[in-house]
Amino acid sequence: MQEKDIKKLLEQVKNNSISIDEAAETLKDLPYKDMGFANIDNHRALRTGYPEVIFCQGKTPEQIRDIMCELVKKGGNIMGTRATEEDYEAVKEALPQAVFFETARIIAVLDERKKANGNLPTVAVVTAGTADIPVAEEAAVTAEILGNKVIRIYDVGVAGIHRLFDKLTQIREADVVIAVAGMEGALASVVGGLVDSPVIAVPTSIGYGANLGGISALLSMLNSCANGVAVVNIDNGFGAAYMAAVINKGK
Amino acid sequence: MQEKDIKKLLEQVKNNSISIDEAAETLKDLPYKDMGFANIDNHRALRTGYPEVIFCQGKTPEQIRDIMCELVKKGGNIMGTRATEEDYEAVKEALPQAVFFETARIIAVLDERKKANGNLPTVAVVTAGTADIPVAEEAAVTAEILGNKVIRIYDVGVAGIHRLFDKLTQIREADVVIAVAGMEGALASVVGGLVDSPVIAVPTSIGYGANLGGISALLSMLNSCANGVAVVNIDNGFGAAYMAAVINKGK
Amino acid sequence: MQEKDIKKLLEQVKNNSISIDEAAETLKDLPYKDMGFANIDNHRALRTGYPEVIFCQGKTPEQIRDIMCELVKKGGNIMGTRATEEDYEAVKEALPQAVFFETARIIAVLDERKKANGNLPTVAVVTAGTADIPVAEEAAVTAEILGNKVIRIYDVGVAGIHRLFDKLTQIREADVVIAVAGMEGALASVVGGLVDSPVIAVPTSIGYGANLGGISALLSMLNSCANGVAVVNIDNGFGAAYMAAVINKGK
Amino acid sequence: MQEKDIKKLLEQVKNNSISIDEAAETLKDLPYKDMGFANIDNHRALRTGYPEVIFCQGKTPEQIRDIMCELVKKGGNIMGTRATEEDYEAVKEALPQAVFFETARIIAVLDERKKANGNLPTVAVVTAGTADIPVAEEAAVTAEILGNKVIRIYDVGVAGIHRLFDKLTQIREADVVIAVAGMEGALASVVGGLVDSPVIAVPTSIGYGANLGGISALLSMLNSCANGVAVVNIDNGFGAAYMAAVINKGK
Amino acid sequence: MQEKDIKKLLEQVKNNSISIDEAAETLKDLPYKDMGFANIDNHRALRTGYPEVIFCQGKTPEQIRDIMCELVKKGGNIMGTRATEEDYEAVKEALPQAVFFETARIIAVLDERKKANGNLPTVAVVTAGTADIPVAEEAAVTAEILGNKVIRIYDVGVAGIHRLFDKLTQIREADVVIAVAGMEGALASVVGGLVDSPVIAVPTSIGYGANLGGISALLSMLNSCANGVAVVNIDNGFGAAYMAAVINKGK
Amino acid sequence: MQEKDIKKLLEQVKNNSISIDEAAETLKDLPYKDMGFANIDNHRALRTGYPEVIFCQGKTPEQIRDIMCELVKKGGNIMGTRATEEDYEAVKEALPQAVFFETARIIAVLDERKKANGNLPTVAVVTAGTADIPVAEEAAVTAEILGNKVIRIYDVGVAGIHRLFDKLTQIREADVVIAVAGMEGALASVVGGLVDSPVIAVPTSIGYGANLGGISALLSMLNSCANGVAVVNIDNGFGAAYMAAVINKGK
Amino acid sequence: MQEKDIKKLLEQVKNNSISIDEAAETLKDLPYKDMGFANIDNHRALRTGYPEVIFCQGKTPEQIRDIMCELVKKGGNIMGTRATEEDYEAVKEALPQAVFFETARIIAVLDERKKANGNLPTVAVVTAGTADIPVAEEAAVTAEILGNKVIRIYDVGVAGIHRLFDKLTQIREADVVIAVAGMEGALASVVGGLVDSPVIAVPTSIGYGANLGGISALLSMLNSCANGVAVVNIDNGFGAAYMAAVINKGK
Amino acid sequence: MQEKDIKKLLEQVKNNSISIDEAAETLKDLPYKDMGFANIDNHRALRTGYPEVIFCQGKTPEQIRDIMCELVKKGGNIMGTRATEEDYEAVKEALPQAVFFETARIIAVLDERKKANGNLPTVAVVTAGTADIPVAEEAAVTAEILGNKVIRIYDVGVAGIHRLFDKLTQIREADVVIAVAGMEGALASVVGGLVDSPVIAVPTSIGYGANLGGISALLSMLNSCANGVAVVNIDNGFGAAYMAAVINKGK
Repeated sequence: MQEKDIKKLLEQVKNNSISIDEAAETLKDLPYKDMGFANIDNHRALRTGYPEVIFCQGKTPEQIRDIMCELVKKGGNIMGTRATEEDYEAVKEALPQAVFFETARIIAVLDERKKANGNLPTVAVVTAGTADIPVAEEAAVTAEILGNKVIRIYDVGVAGIHRLFDKLTQIREADVVIAVAGMEGALASVVGGLVDSPVIAVPTSIGYGANLGGISALLSMLNSCANGVAVVNIDNGFGAAYMAAVINKGK
Repeated sequence: MQEKDIKKLLEQVKNNSISIDEAAETLKDLPYKDMGFANIDNHRALRTGYPEVIFCQGKTPEQIRDIMCELVKKGGNIMGTRATEEDYEAVKEALPQAVFFETARIIAVLDERKKANGNLPTVAVVTAGTADIPVAEEAAVTAEILGNKVIRIYDVGVAGIHRLFDKLTQIREADVVIAVAGMEGALASVVGGLVDSPVIAVPTSIGYGANLGGISALLSMLNSCANGVAVVNIDNGFGAAYMAAVINKGK
Repeated sequence: MQEKDIKKLLEQVKNNSISIDEAAETLKDLPYKDMGFANIDNHRALRTGYPEVIFCQGKTPEQIRDIMCELVKKGGNIMGTRATEEDYEAVKEALPQAVFFETARIIAVLDERKKANGNLPTVAVVTAGTADIPVAEEAAVTAEILGNKVIRIYDVGVAGIHRLFDKLTQIREADVVIAVAGMEGALASVVGGLVDSPVIAVPTSIGYGANLGGISALLSMLNSCANGVAVVNIDNGFGAAYMAAVINKGK
Repeated sequence: MQEKDIKKLLEQVKNNSISIDEAAETLKDLPYKDMGFANIDNHRALRTGYPEVIFCQGKTPEQIRDIMCELVKKGGNIMGTRATEEDYEAVKEALPQAVFFETARIIAVLDERKKANGNLPTVAVVTAGTADIPVAEEAAVTAEILGNKVIRIYDVGVAGIHRLFDKLTQIREADVVIAVAGMEGALASVVGGLVDSPVIAVPTSIGYGANLGGISALLSMLNSCANGVAVVNIDNGFGAAYMAAVINKGK
Repeated sequence: MQEKDIKKLLEQVKNNSISIDEAAETLKDLPYKDMGFANIDNHRALRTGYPEVIFCQGKTPEQIRDIMCELVKKGGNIMGTRATEEDYEAVKEALPQAVFFETARIIAVLDERKKANGNLPTVAVVTAGTADIPVAEEAAVTAEILGNKVIRIYDVGVAGIHRLFDKLTQIREADVVIAVAGMEGALASVVGGLVDSPVIAVPTSIGYGANLGGISALLSMLNSCANGVAVVNIDNGFGAAYMAAVINKGK
Repeated sequence: MQEKDIKKLLEQVKNNSISIDEAAETLKDLPYKDMGFANIDNHRALRTGYPEVIFCQGKTPEQIRDIMCELVKKGGNIMGTRATEEDYEAVKEALPQAVFFETARIIAVLDERKKANGNLPTVAVVTAGTADIPVAEEAAVTAEILGNKVIRIYDVGVAGIHRLFDKLTQIREADVVIAVAGMEGALASVVGGLVDSPVIAVPTSIGYGANLGGISALLSMLNSCANGVAVVNIDNGFGAAYMAAVINKGK
Repeated sequence: MQEKDIKKLLEQVKNNSISIDEAAETLKDLPYKDMGFANIDNHRALRTGYPEVIFCQGKTPEQIRDIMCELVKKGGNIMGTRATEEDYEAVKEALPQAVFFETARIIAVLDERKKANGNLPTVAVVTAGTADIPVAEEAAVTAEILGNKVIRIYDVGVAGIHRLFDKLTQIREADVVIAVAGMEGALASVVGGLVDSPVIAVPTSIGYGANLGGISALLSMLNSCANGVAVVNIDNGFGAAYMAAVINKGK
Repeated sequence: MQEKDIKKLLEQVKNNSISIDEAAETLKDLPYKDMGFANIDNHRALRTGYPEVIFCQGKTPEQIRDIMCELVKKGGNIMGTRATEEDYEAVKEALPQAVFFETARIIAVLDERKKANGNLPTVAVVTAGTADIPVAEEAAVTAEILGNKVIRIYDVGVAGIHRLFDKLTQIREADVVIAVAGMEGALASVVGGLVDSPVIAVPTSIGYGANLGGISALLSMLNSCANGVAVVNIDNGFGAAYMAAVINKGK
């Protein structure tokens, strides 16, 4: 309920076209239902241009299909993360316009996907190894769906740091850098020391032995000696891209 | 802002004694300031009869004194947990009516402390060892301030389980049992298997070696094979008593 | 052996219908077998109205069926938690009256399930996400079997906190609130700050990355800055409902 | 060594004013010393407007004073974090223009501190409790020194969530929100669900029992179910503000 | 090489029936091969009466069969722990005399299994729940094979502590008590406080949620407030029985 | 209440010298107060010959003195562990017969300390380093007070394993071996592989870096590949000696 | 770009055979592409004689085959670690010269495998148990491929330490010792105390209960009281052998 | 007992100059006392040229002085690590020739310190920050005492990676590189990717927040994606230098 609606209601009261009891009834529910949370209701994920997001893991293909169908009725864009080929098959039957980003494990139903052009803000997605690519692609595709141009720079980990330097100019051009790394996670610190943009670090569960499912990389990134680095949860490519999109919002 | 206030406002609109713009302005703030959170505002700890609580640890005696003085102005009861003798000295100067529960480490300023009588709901506070007593006293004194009769049964840990059985009738009479134990925390399970009342388990940081500052007792209590047991944070005697008081509220 | 049985025995002694030696023999075993643990024997789970509970996980369908059949002979209600469809098939063959709560993963054999009516004490079961529902249903069905009216309020997590506020009146009506949440577990603190009833927090293992199988939510709930909150083990919906039922017992 | 310098050198070679050996020698060192790292050398913290930062903890007052004096010679702004009153006394003797932000534990020597005006980008610093204020002030003062307008909103934790809602409009006006919380760290999720700006979450080591020196809050924040939230290290107010400043850089 | 063999060799030297060089050659290898480690060589597990032990988990049925066949050639008893039905099938083909203890997951090839009689030292194996029985049976069968009489007392956990008391006389008769428990592991402390014999505590990985694969029970047992309790590794029924047998050796 | 007392009571009932109600009342309390726990009451630590034990750490010298004085009145031996010089000074004033074992940090008041002679069972206390000696002495003195002859073999850690071998004959003569080690705790495994007696392993908190306050040694000992080894809590020399004494009891 | 190439370029400038602009363009890219990182580019793993290494785990057989085929085109040796039989089948089809080391899980394509001869530096690979052999073989085969002679000494763990002593002379002959052990990892300390060569310790994930996937052995090895021991990641046989080869490089 | 001694003994037997019993007695003790451990006795730390090492932390100045005096009598070099100024004062009184390396916290008593010359093998000690210098100096001084030439390169952490590149040539000249870093420990990976020599990584406890006393850096280093890196315990500069010296031994 917008301010103009309130005023309209008050006019109706004034004009006797609505009784005081009826008006009071409407206003009583106002804080939660109508006005008060008009803003809150526009919960971030529901805003124009930003898609509804479904975390597919742990849901059956049928459940995913049904949720997506219901959301499509409301209009707007939809994306499902951690989706499988099988999930996509189920969705595609009901929603032929759905597209599947296989490596990123994302199903998307988009009204109109914005074409990348020079004016879009840019996000560089950088990975330490090739094994980090699925998480990186989750970030990259998400960032694109949320209206960013994405520069993908993969397999430039610190064990062969010259590969990173070759790409430095490109990385520096981005408005936000997403650094995706497992094992010791040193990439975030190195990138953080070389660029001026905000760096979102994504630890991945890639590795073995004492990598502790990504905790080692996570701790490493949190303890980064470089400034301008913040961290999201392990393997959370989506979350990193969302953060990047929020940072780039006004640009 | 109660419903009658809304109706009054609407009547003013109807009577032209207030402009639509003014009314809209008042209503716009409504969810947070006036009506919507009238209830919410009555935050638990602020209700009649329940004191304001100050966590003294980490505050200077002067800060504690000043906060207490300000709260006294508002009326109502006040209690400070994790207080030292030194804290009390500072408070007593300004508020001579303050009392200090030394073992419980609680300073209290109470309008009128309810006398224990047979009609009060009861809380049994049970400890495994003598070293758990400070935490137990924090619980016991808090429960008393919050309007409960407290039965103290200390040093009845499972290594000499007959001591516990000697007290079983007393423990069973309580409406709620608070089981305070460090080391292996087995007391909570044993008590939980012997009584019908809800058991609030408080792990303490008492112990040495692999007790991990109370984590061992905490894990033990969470994994209790007895039903009707729930757990609060390590050494959190206050929290256990608060929970007990909430459970006993209507009794 | 009840007090009246002891008196009867003593009368038999007095009447010479039993020798002193025979009576002494009977009384000697008394502490453990007969009288002494008459109370203890009435172990919580065995009391009238409370069902016997079998933790099915890790048992074969045949074992579950056999245990249930034996318990049925003793009369009384029986429930099996963490049961599978397959477990239910095995039980149903032998006990056709058995019912299966699929989402809750509970098999129940109930003499007569009490109809919900206005006089029953109420338990609100609140979840942060849809993925928490199986644990919540375990809690909800258990609470119902143990004689409570249950209000289910699902998917009101703090990322879209307005959904929680819409339901606040309902939640506040409950005698006990069970807050079920994975990920960061913040729901317990927020609910704890908004209601006057005791809140039982159930951390769930829902989440990924650094959720550590529910440890993150568990720690979050233990460290809750709200009072009147206690915690049970990860995913332990049954335990939370049992605690709630014990709290509601006299109501 | 800029491109024009290289050309100049080449011309000297052509003009025989320098021998090929000499030119080769100069060029051999080029990647690290002169050209190659001309960019890299402009390490983030050294750029115009951004001060040099000294982490004072673990250094003697004399060491801090000496380092600051040397940096002042180079010109530019300087700030020392985790500084004590004693550190400041030592610095002030040598650099009377130094100022001390006591709660923030920051010593600053600033050429000219920019006056806050309407055109500066804004950072909202929000804390759950009063005990989180030192970390929050470290963030707030750092953000101001780095050219941001800061909105301080303290003690609005989720146990009394209405206090947060009262301030929501203010928080929503900020370009970046820094959410500082110890205990269960739920504030970051709640704020993340209510605002559109990027949220930098700072776990603090405030709390007791199973808070594990801030790890509980850290895990909670990493597992946040709200999007648009990224995390820095425990108690790292400086790091959060630096990240915020980097995000706000172009605004 | 026994002392008498050395003397024999020396006599041969004296009698010239062996050259000094030959004798020196024999003696040179002595420390490790023959005499020096004659004792060491009789590694505990190899002594008369104690069987060779194979940890079957992680080995193929064929490997287990082959190892057993080779050991049989050397004579003596053999036992394989953590064996499956499939392992047994493979072994039985080659060694028809092999027996399989299904719940204990032990395959044994025994020259002559000592009959239990009143003179054997006794080991009581006590479990908290039925789910702990496989670990308990591993302990019980091992103890029997190692020459002890075993008293099995299962499902007497502390949630229904009267069951434990019913069996107390039996438990007290044992020379060593093995207490097997998962979940919160409180059984070890309670038993430790009630008996005079050494108690070997075996934490099991039984439980869910925050039991951490048995770590909770392990920590609980290590922190036992009862004396006369020592702990072996999680689920290590074999190790507990071995320790018990070593303690009972001379009896 | 012994059997003869029960019979006497029954006779009084028969003789009408006591009413049935009075008799029933007496019998009702029987399990816990009189007969039932006559045995249980003989809690281990209270048996003849075994001293009362006070854990002094965390108690004031005055409290220790007072507790000891009270215990002396009851007769029997007394020992206080983790005692300081200051504690001893306080005790000695009141109990001049008290003796102080400085390295072991034990105060003892003994009626008559048994002289070591050849017939006493023996305990070998073995340490890896010199820094483990205080824990070892706590074990050694405790074992002596509990009636064992102690062989001390210190500083024979595995980094210089020949020192251990030099002492092997002595170690093998002991009825029980206590292996005390910090750092990597390998001593327990090595000793366990070389002796036939039960080995009680005591991890110590000695070490630095990733020793985690003794957790590293504890884990190492629990995972020992040698059989016949059980573990007590970190630094718990007393507990190890108590266990050893219990094992040696009948010898 | 070598120094001679730079000089050549400068001569061309001098000779006017290249314009200054062209020369500047070439030199501008120099730091990363040509000269500056000429050394860096020769990343360790790419040097003559050292093979390219592929970590096969997590890659499909087809991906492994394709990567290997591409690398073969560049010439040089190739090895794939953590490979399965199935991976090898795929590779063998395309590269019939590939060999498979089954226990070591290594596929190798070698131009010419150097024959072991007396002049090669030697690496002793020592294991505690038979279960550690796969990790040990990964180390042994890697060391051989990298040009070392390998002495394999398996199953000499500390529980039967005489087996280790029998092999001591052999172990002492090696230039580097790799000690592979799970469970309590004591082997590294014992070996470290007995040899003069550098010891690379490899913790393995072998064990059960509280071995924590190799963390126990890892901690044990890090806390080794022996000097001259360094540690690689859990199960990282390849890494240990690589380190050994680097140490042996010049020999 | 060497082979010639055995032969001599056998000859005495043959010659009747010794009885068979006496000879047998001598030979029986042989493995441990004389021959068998003649080699073992030459424990690493005792060899010519390598000093005796005392870990001073936890010892009183007097104890340190006394131990050093006793060792000086035996001749040879001595060093004490983790020593304080106060320790040195005590030592210097008795041993005026003792020298103190303040930052390294090492006291040394050296017969003749070898002068650094071009022929010594070299160790580069590299640190990430200035706070890592005490650990680095412990490594550097130890390496020098053990006969190496040391190149110190401090404060070249990855946040300003160009500083590292400036020193690359120097670092590459070393036979062994010791990389000392706290916080995220990325330095080890970056150095490991840039040099051909073995890299010993030393995690330090430098940092705050989630650095967990150095565990974060330790995990990071263990998970290093660079090859040729092995790790020693947290803050163990001495251990790293010892390992480096062992590697350099033959050079």
